Amino acid sequence: MALRAALRNQFGLLSQLSSCSSHGRVCVSPVLVTQQRNNSTSPKIRVDFDQSTGVAVMHMQSPPVNSFSLDFLTEFCISLEKLEMDKGCRGLIITSSQPKVFSAGLDILEMYGKSPERCGEFWKAVQEMWLKLYSSNMVTMAAVCGSSPAGGCLMALTCDYRIMADNPRYSIGLNETQLGIVAPFWFRDTMANTVGHRTTEIALQLGILYSPSEALKIGLVDQLVPEDQVLTTATQTMTKWLAIPDHARQITKSMMRKPTIDKLTSSREADIQNFVSFITKDSIQKSLRLYLEMLKKRRG
Amino acid sequence: MALRAALRNQFGLLSQLSSCSSHGRVCVSPVLVTQQRNNSTSPKIRVDFDQSTGVAVMHMQSPPVNSFSLDFLTEFCISLEKLEMDKGCRGLIITSSQPKVFSAGLDILEMYGKSPERCGEFWKAVQEMWLKLYSSNMVTMAAVCGSSPAGGCLMALTCDYRIMADNPRYSIGLNETQLGIVAPFWFRDTMANTVGHRTTEIALQLGILYSPSEALKIGLVDQLVPEDQVLTTATQTMTKWLAIPDHARQITKSMMRKPTIDKLTSSREADIQNFVSFITKDSIQKSLRLYLEMLKKRRG
Amino acid sequence: MALRAALRNQFGLLSQLSSCSSHGRVCVSPVLVTQQRNNSTSPKIRVDFDQSTGVAVMHMQSPPVNSFSLDFLTEFCISLEKLEMDKGCRGLIITSSQPKVFSAGLDILEMYGKSPERCGEFWKAVQEMWLKLYSSNMVTMAAVCGSSPAGGCLMALTCDYRIMADNPRYSIGLNETQLGIVAPFWFRDTMANTVGHRTTEIALQLGILYSPSEALKIGLVDQLVPEDQVLTTATQTMTKWLAIPDHARQITKSMMRKPTIDKLTSSREADIQNFVSFITKDSIQKSLRLYLEMLKKRRG
Repeated sequence: MALRAALRNQFGLLSQLSSCSSHGRVCVSPVLVTQQRNNSTSPKIRVDFDQSTGVAVMHMQSPPVNSFSLDFLTEFCISLEKLEMDKGCRGLIITSSQPKVFSAGLDILEMYGKSPERCGEFWKAVQEMWLKLYSSNMVTMAAVCGSSPAGGCLMALTCDYRIMADNPRYSIGLNETQLGIVAPFWFRDTMANTVGHRTTEIALQLGILYSPSEALKIGLVDQLVPEDQVLTTATQTMTKWLAIPDHARQITKSMMRKPTIDKLTSSREADIQNFVSFITKDSIQKSLRLYLEMLKKRRG
Repeated sequence: MALRAALRNQFGLLSQLSSCSSHGRVCVSPVLVTQQRNNSTSPKIRVDFDQSTGVAVMHMQSPPVNSFSLDFLTEFCISLEKLEMDKGCRGLIITSSQPKVFSAGLDILEMYGKSPERCGEFWKAVQEMWLKLYSSNMVTMAAVCGSSPAGGCLMALTCDYRIMADNPRYSIGLNETQLGIVAPFWFRDTMANTVGHRTTEIALQLGILYSPSEALKIGLVDQLVPEDQVLTTATQTMTKWLAIPDHARQITKSMMRKPTIDKLTSSREADIQNFVSFITKDSIQKSLRLYLEMLKKRRG
Repeated sequence: MALRAALRNQFGLLSQLSSCSSHGRVCVSPVLVTQQRNNSTSPKIRVDFDQSTGVAVMHMQSPPVNSFSLDFLTEFCISLEKLEMDKGCRGLIITSSQPKVFSAGLDILEMYGKSPERCGEFWKAVQEMWLKLYSSNMVTMAAVCGSSPAGGCLMALTCDYRIMADNPRYSIGLNETQLGIVAPFWFRDTMANTVGHRTTEIALQLGILYSPSEALKIGLVDQLVPEDQVLTTATQTMTKWLAIPDHARQITKSMMRKPTIDKLTSSREADIQNFVSFITKDSIQKSLRLYLEMLKKRRG
């Protein structure tokens, strides 16, 4: 019964996302598009890099809800690595081109009915996304222009700064327990580093999705602005961060995050095994099947 | 002089508790009593277990102030273990049947004039209470319907959620230093996990007892309600927690608390030796004797 | 360009400090001066010790901005050690006799154009100041009666309690990155122990200098009072702290701080090597030279 209620809840989010897309505003800055000089395109992620400012904007554009599939994550990591290696790129803003959603997080289809090998490959890509982003030498900002549950919340938390659209219909949080699954220790660490131990303990146990104003209050996001100003505010805030000498900021950032990163790098294989053995359990697979059937029925 | 002032302070609390009992309201829900199906009784703790909801309520009923004597702790742990092993019991609410007090904490009589062996046995029981409660698979809630100093505060902190009566005459906190004794590292860790390092540093150094509104502000309790609604609110809040699939919530809880628990389990014997050698010091015994004589004089 | 902006910013602070000294009020309590019985004097630090209360006041009086030179730090540590060994001295208040500033922190002249040996000696003295103060058995309070950037902020953070003048022209913070240098791990730990991980991450990356009201809000200081009441409030607050039995308070304080202290004591030599190899880099020396030339030009 508890699981059913949780699934209804999650379904509510997705059905809301799909049914109301006509009212959604897409977080794209026309200014940046015209300024862009050196752009790469790919099916799931579009990167606009403005060499004059040294700031790149990654637009996640994987319909309907920017789910993190293995393909998505692979593209994300390749794009990130390219920017990381470009000395001219000092700042990165991550945002979404999909209306009403930043990202819905891990793609459930990657976890249902897949072989252990494939599940392991998927999880390794999730780790890679987090490792690369949390340790990035660039200033990283999440322009959270829509809902951001589970892995979407993790991606936002992994940036240096989070600006969210002040729309009470959106929510953000690590809500894994509501689906009967568990956020791993490095999701926990990333959240605890942001909002502290106690708030994390309650948030993760209950799988709480916070409204933007609640998220601001507990420090899960840093700033709320009207929906159409999320990206421009991120761009302006970036200027302030880039005023700090890079080498001092980078050493400082590394000093703050290295202990957390080291915990995963030193136990990466065990973390993969842990995920695979959990997600391939019959009971968990059954939960996921019920969830997917529900989604299908509603949409059909 | 400092110690004398501190003792006066502590005495104030106890004398207030004993002189005003006629106005106290007892935190007992008549609803639960009628619904109870499977009750065990014991001199110091009464357990009401409602099999239809899967929620047990532990009423501490050891006059006058639910002090943690060795007997009390032994009963508490046995009751807790029984509920823990009952698959049907998913949630536990801990409250008090004594007016105006949740628990006054460790029984000073167990620490004064006792042999090192007996002191060690007592301390092991305090450890056991904390270990069992902090690692419980059940959802645990403290319905704090009165003052809760020292060990009483620890018990509340060890639960998943704390609801306190909004009565400014009540207070809660780890006030050990005011009595010239010291909260051990796992008291500190439990508090720091709840309110953070800095608040814990000030609170423990000064032995601060917080009013309910102050306790809410620093996060020492989660919610304040009128005195007669403490238990009903706990029951309602429990429903929300039980809506989360048990296995996901339990793994998450364990992940949050295991590092703190491991620190004690790996040094339990040293912690006992540390306590025994401290508490049996002449200077500490003298402090406790003065304190007990003061209490006796006032009551006599 | 970023560095230039940062230097302008820092220069603004120093030029403000030097140009407006006529309006500054010096934090000296006439009461304490008349009560003092056992005073030692030295060029850079004046100590007033009131044996009747057991409280000493250290006045930093090294013009113009109480910079931490090697000489200053040596005197500071000798004064501190003397008080520490005096059984009658239970509390220490640190304040400034210089108008408008608590301390500007590390003396840049000690880091520019010096031999590695001398840089190492200097850094060892900075470590020593922190180690002695953070582990002091006395109750330590910072009466922050003016601006307190970088090392000045560290000294304040290292005390048990911080009272700051409520003057919006003053600021406090670890602003090292703004100068292109990096606060070491024990600066970070001291700050994180006070304001938490997330606030520290942002504050250190951006090198933020907070106004007194912002500092209070994030917990960087504990209390704001009018400028002429900073020292008297510290004296009154000290009374409250000294009401707690010393041995219990000292054990508790040590329990809270020992893990942080142990991290430096176990890696002191490596930390010195790290500092020396960083600060003697050509690029860092060039930054410091530009900064010093700018200061000189403005003042000249």
